[in-house]
Amino acid sequence: MLNRDRLDAIVNNMKKLGLTQILVSDDNAVYYITGRKIDAMERCGALLIKDDGEVHAFMNRLFCFEEMDGMTMHYYSDDENPYKMIAENLNSGAVGFDKNWASKHTISILTERKDISPVIGSDAVDMSMALKDEEEKEKLRHAAKINDMAMDFAVSNIDEKLDEKELSDKIEEFFEKNGASRDIQLQYVCYGKNAAEPHHGAVAGEKLNEGDAVLFDLWAPINGYWCDMTRTVFYKKCSDRHREIYNIVKNAQKAAIDTVKPGVKMHDIDAAARKVISDAGYGEYFITRTGHGVGMTVHEPPEAKSGNDTIAEVGMCFSIEPGIYIKDDIGVRIEDLVIVTEDGCEVLTKYPKELIIVK
Amino acid sequence: MLNRDRLDAIVNNMKKLGLTQILVSDDNAVYYITGRKIDAMERCGALLIKDDGEVHAFMNRLFCFEEMDGMTMHYYSDDENPYKMIAENLNSGAVGFDKNWASKHTISILTERKDISPVIGSDAVDMSMALKDEEEKEKLRHAAKINDMAMDFAVSNIDEKLDEKELSDKIEEFFEKNGASRDIQLQYVCYGKNAAEPHHGAVAGEKLNEGDAVLFDLWAPINGYWCDMTRTVFYKKCSDRHREIYNIVKNAQKAAIDTVKPGVKMHDIDAAARKVISDAGYGEYFITRTGHGVGMTVHEPPEAKSGNDTIAEVGMCFSIEPGIYIKDDIGVRIEDLVIVTEDGCEVLTKYPKELIIVK
Repeated sequence: MLNRDRLDAIVNNMKKLGLTQILVSDDNAVYYITGRKIDAMERCGALLIKDDGEVHAFMNRLFCFEEMDGMTMHYYSDDENPYKMIAENLNSGAVGFDKNWASKHTISILTERKDISPVIGSDAVDMSMALKDEEEKEKLRHAAKINDMAMDFAVSNIDEKLDEKELSDKIEEFFEKNGASRDIQLQYVCYGKNAAEPHHGAVAGEKLNEGDAVLFDLWAPINGYWCDMTRTVFYKKCSDRHREIYNIVKNAQKAAIDTVKPGVKMHDIDAAARKVISDAGYGEYFITRTGHGVGMTVHEPPEAKSGNDTIAEVGMCFSIEPGIYIKDDIGVRIEDLVIVTEDGCEVLTKYPKELIIVK
Repeated sequence: MLNRDRLDAIVNNMKKLGLTQILVSDDNAVYYITGRKIDAMERCGALLIKDDGEVHAFMNRLFCFEEMDGMTMHYYSDDENPYKMIAENLNSGAVGFDKNWASKHTISILTERKDISPVIGSDAVDMSMALKDEEEKEKLRHAAKINDMAMDFAVSNIDEKLDEKELSDKIEEFFEKNGASRDIQLQYVCYGKNAAEPHHGAVAGEKLNEGDAVLFDLWAPINGYWCDMTRTVFYKKCSDRHREIYNIVKNAQKAAIDTVKPGVKMHDIDAAARKVISDAGYGEYFITRTGHGVGMTVHEPPEAKSGNDTIAEVGMCFSIEPGIYIKDDIGVRIEDLVIVTEDGCEVLTKYPKELIIVK
């Protein structure tokens, strides 16, 4: 069903951005607006939204959804030209195209109409999708709850007999049993110095040793919305230096979370975490951004990073995940998802952050 | 290293197509030309090829490869505008863009230069990539050899205790141990009437029964090149009718393979398989195309299907996979990969096609 509230928000954004017509092809964006996916794959499938709220759908008969109230449907067969069909429904002037739509579609439409000029139109949809409504918040909370369970499962299954990949596979299986879809990603399980590489995944043959940090970065899509959480625990013992590093990251993460409220800029959230780590003398080891938006995709706007002056608004959902990464030694990252509320934020992931030493 | 032979073939195709400059962004296409990947992800990364053989590379400093003889390198940082850099190196007139490049890149370049007109330029590269050279043929042969081993493993592991998904997972593990990369797809294992659905994958809980057809469609990328093979065997017994259907498909597949040689049209290969199945009275149950190209991707041009008058040329690699699909009863598909040779074709996959009844 056409979601009129979401459509209104998009049309409102179009007006703010000076766009009179946009083409929306992104699978998640189409689903966000209509509750259905086109799954056009390499074929042409898109919604055309006008600034008066008029919506057209253009879909291949083989990859389409049925008629929907409030939308004008245009179906084409493999022997028809969908671009001509779309072009006939455009007004002269600027047309906002989906940023990630394959260029063959955009170029084919431009070829049909010399009186239109292409601009990138995705912001109108992205700005709306960044502000989660109640239905979406519930889905994010549910996904975070499964994430908490998965983290508990992960920590409980730490075992010298399992290499990183084996433990990662067990966690993936746990996610799948608990509702994660096939688009699940590799679960990050990093032992010891491997955790010092922020994008180390989980590698077969990598063994666990006494005194290692064990970093779990667990993420999966559940009912169409992602969860994403990181915890770092220690195996059997933890040196004083590692304990110090852990506590600095924990304090940095708290400082960033405490900063979140409507009106602050995303770079201020990053700066809050960065200040704690820099003041403790580890600034050069915090080599990533502090966070990224999460929703129907696991990396989306807004980013909490230096230079991003996007203003936090009620309903935005993003990660807060500062870290300290010291090559050949240790990596510590602590990550939660938060949703911006009227007076601060709601932390979705609840797994404890006190230092844990697994015996 | 810049592959001069491949570049020459592309430039030659550009001339045939009337293109004087193309932008190549596809990861596989860039690798095909340079032996390196850009992995630009959402950032801008592309090669510019001119019809005099001049090549420029445009890459983000974070996602790039080093200087290479024969190419002019242009590196940009996150605070620079790569589109301006590309635009400055374009001539007026038509520019061929990569068909699948995200529209944001194409539009950003068009915004910089009002005197260029966008066309789809991928054919110049695709036409060259469809004709495999010796190095590529060796990789395809090697992948097919692993595919033969995987099929042998699959048939040997048929067991009532395993549901479709469990057997599929075992096959995937076998592929991984034998060099398949992480981009591996779900291995299709279809028991009984599930095989009647050409796109049935492998589903947990689906059990094997006496008299079932067992369809294995096994595919994986090995050293960057895909293999793809299907066999259908029977469990414990095979009715006369199923045996008849099996033999019709086997004969259809042979007829199509026998048709392959330089100069035939792709639709003639499809027609050869279709004739055998139609003459036997099962025409309405052959509901798919006969084949698709295979190389660095598992589905690429040329397709063996009705209406495709592409002419088979020496070096093309594609699948031959007719089938009969009878709902709620049985599905039989037999698939091999072939490479077109001077006087016919080389069949890469060698697993036997005589009817097998697993006891």
